[in-house]
Amino acid sequence: MTKSSFIEKGNQAPADYFVGSVNVNLLLENNEYNTIMGIVSFGKGARTNWHTHTNGQILLVIEGIGYYQEKGKPVEIIRQGDVIKIPANIEHWHGGSKESAMRHVAIVPDSASDKTDWLLPVTDEEYSSVNP
Amino acid sequence: MTKSSFIEKGNQAPADYFVGSVNVNLLLENNEYNTIMGIVSFGKGARTNWHTHTNGQILLVIEGIGYYQEKGKPVEIIRQGDVIKIPANIEHWHGGSKESAMRHVAIVPDSASDKTDWLLPVTDEEYSSVNP
Repeated sequence: MTKSSFIEKGNQAPADYFVGSVNVNLLLENNEYNTIMGIVSFGKGARTNWHTHTNGQILLVIEGIGYYQEKGKPVEIIRQGDVIKIPANIEHWHGGSKESAMRHVAIVPDSASDKTDWLLPVTDEEYSSVNP
Repeated sequence: MTKSSFIEKGNQAPADYFVGSVNVNLLLENNEYNTIMGIVSFGKGARTNWHTHTNGQILLVIEGIGYYQEKGKPVEIIRQGDVIKIPANIEHWHGGSKESAMRHVAIVPDSASDKTDWLLPVTDEEYSSVNP
């Protein structure tokens, strides 16, 4: 076996796909185990862009309180202990809340066949208007 | 999306495959997302039987201190924060340590194609002789 640590915060996430202070600790690389798995640490107010996964995604919230929103639906609060199952091809974003940082494990199954499409940023106007 | 909780301990694990007090909270069922994912909570001294996975397995230790051993190798201590990558087809077991309970997320990728073989229990003699 090989051992690493999911406590490490990892590297700054690419500004093309995220807004604000976001770090990613990639736990599996190059489709190892045919799965993408990483720890994503969002600062207060930080978030992903809108995006979709053809295979869906599973989040395990391991710290803090954050937001999750699907296009056309109200934002939902997600908090430590929550398991979020995101359906395939649903446009959504996730991130920290206005008051709290948030950290989750993110898992994309069957990564060899998945296609993740990164879309528009969640603007400050969109983010500030969420009313969970 | 659908939401559940990984804080729930779930149900008593089947005595055919585990020794001692072990609970399993299955987070994905019926090959949903082509992945098996669950939270396994081992009491002090509790453990899996020896077993193998044709696709390997990933563990995220979320609480406590436990043991992990591959056939013919010394036992290794695993603790909160560790990510354990178990290779395919390697006979191994995991569980709580003598002094502490342990809880991990367990992920079997590509579950539709995985075959997990459950083998002999880790006897009290084997367990008590580990010297990490």
